[in-house]
Amino acid sequence: MDKDFGGFKNILIIGLGLIGGSIAVSLKSSGYRGKIYGFDLSSERVKKAVELQAVDEAYTQLEDIPWDEIDLVILATPVKTFEEIAKKIKPFLRKDTVVTDVGSVKGSLVEKIQNILSPVKFIGAHPIAGTEKEGIENAVVGLFKGKKLILTIDREDESTKRLEKFWTDLGAKVEVMDPHTHDFVFASVSHLPHAVAFALVDALIELSKETGIDLFLYPGAGFKDFTRIAASSPTVWKDIFIENKDNVVHTIERFIQSMEKLKEYIQKEDEDNLIRILSESREKRLSLD
Amino acid sequence: MDKDFGGFKNILIIGLGLIGGSIAVSLKSSGYRGKIYGFDLSSERVKKAVELQAVDEAYTQLEDIPWDEIDLVILATPVKTFEEIAKKIKPFLRKDTVVTDVGSVKGSLVEKIQNILSPVKFIGAHPIAGTEKEGIENAVVGLFKGKKLILTIDREDESTKRLEKFWTDLGAKVEVMDPHTHDFVFASVSHLPHAVAFALVDALIELSKETGIDLFLYPGAGFKDFTRIAASSPTVWKDIFIENKDNVVHTIERFIQSMEKLKEYIQKEDEDNLIRILSESREKRLSLD
Repeated sequence: MDKDFGGFKNILIIGLGLIGGSIAVSLKSSGYRGKIYGFDLSSERVKKAVELQAVDEAYTQLEDIPWDEIDLVILATPVKTFEEIAKKIKPFLRKDTVVTDVGSVKGSLVEKIQNILSPVKFIGAHPIAGTEKEGIENAVVGLFKGKKLILTIDREDESTKRLEKFWTDLGAKVEVMDPHTHDFVFASVSHLPHAVAFALVDALIELSKETGIDLFLYPGAGFKDFTRIAASSPTVWKDIFIENKDNVVHTIERFIQSMEKLKEYIQKEDEDNLIRILSESREKRLSLD
Repeated sequence: MDKDFGGFKNILIIGLGLIGGSIAVSLKSSGYRGKIYGFDLSSERVKKAVELQAVDEAYTQLEDIPWDEIDLVILATPVKTFEEIAKKIKPFLRKDTVVTDVGSVKGSLVEKIQNILSPVKFIGAHPIAGTEKEGIENAVVGLFKGKKLILTIDREDESTKRLEKFWTDLGAKVEVMDPHTHDFVFASVSHLPHAVAFALVDALIELSKETGIDLFLYPGAGFKDFTRIAASSPTVWKDIFIENKDNVVHTIERFIQSMEKLKEYIQKEDEDNLIRILSESREKRLSLD
């Protein structure tokens, strides 16, 4: 089927950061013909987005946006801001405009936004793509190509099919998941690893203080790979951890149990159990490549 | 100064795995003119090493090695085997042959090996290089180029200067450290991150079992980078964890404290402390690039 991006003629991206910017530049390079409008509270980011020709027009005032032209609104701000933004944009929205997001946390937040925007349709979406960088100046053309995109919906309808087509035309592989399962899965495979990376660097800071040896002078290649994600945005991750608190805390507790188990095997020099746990981890990890 | 590899005319590498093999192929490609002999208990590895022309001759029996020709012996087997190997090779060694290693654990092991081999000189060395792969077939030419190499010595003498020249000529950047400091530093920057990676994959296996959701179907890029080192050799890592037990256990405990601290901040939605700890980790991590 031809690329029609779900038939959404003009698009508004709220939040001109790395993800919002990458959607814009990827749309342009994929042959999207509609207009791309941008909104951001920062006039600097708005200026940059226009200069980079990522968007056709960009605004810092909601009143200035040509709302009647807009078929699809994408929230690309931190998840924490969704509720407030939903309340503010509601009076402007056409009833048949579709609103979606690209946030990493869904769960009850999706229902909350749906209730605020109703009867306007809100569809939760989460592209599994990104870098540890920030800002529209680091936007990547084709960021979503070959990457998973999770639509957190209970059932398909015309709007969800259109949004699926939109993301498929951007190269993403769309999967459907209910919002609560989504939050558990991404607590495990994304939020927990980020928490672990932050904690690992913190532990090395503390160990350096304790001994007076600057451990950061000896970063092996493994350590660098391992903690790359510790360079991710503190604000974004603080919000994600808090928004998905219950799942994140549960997975951290489960991880600490694994860490304690490994520590115990090392302390007891329990070679059989060490080999078993290390081999199981190795096999699982190799199966990902 | 010209490359003379410390004047060691012929070399014996004991253990024809990834590191031993990479030393051999890197020597050959760097213009080393002496003979490179290899030893391994496995006749298959010996055969492969000769086929790949990594070594000139290789043996499975210590008696067959032309010991009188050998100026430098490099132990490139798991650290666990050093003591036994030292005892077995001692009767064959010339008094002026230098013995060294490439193991990740030093500490009291270095003194032990020095005592066994005395009056033959043993110098502990640890190249900070490697991959998660195993086997001489994955040997890398230039693996040590630009990488740190730690000589765990108390003071310099003629032999340590020759070994320093050997590694410098292979492209390594040589640093000197006492063996106990070495073990604490590498527990922190290498052994702990490996333990964390293994435990993280283990936690995801357990969380998958608990919920019936195969979490390994959703590996984000961060998770993949993060756990790459969990694919490292279980035998090698079991040995390292046990040989460096006290330091590894201490750093794991320190890391669990950091993890608990982060968990508490998330549970309490303590935004200020979250931002602080995440920002500190981010800055430290960025300073490595």
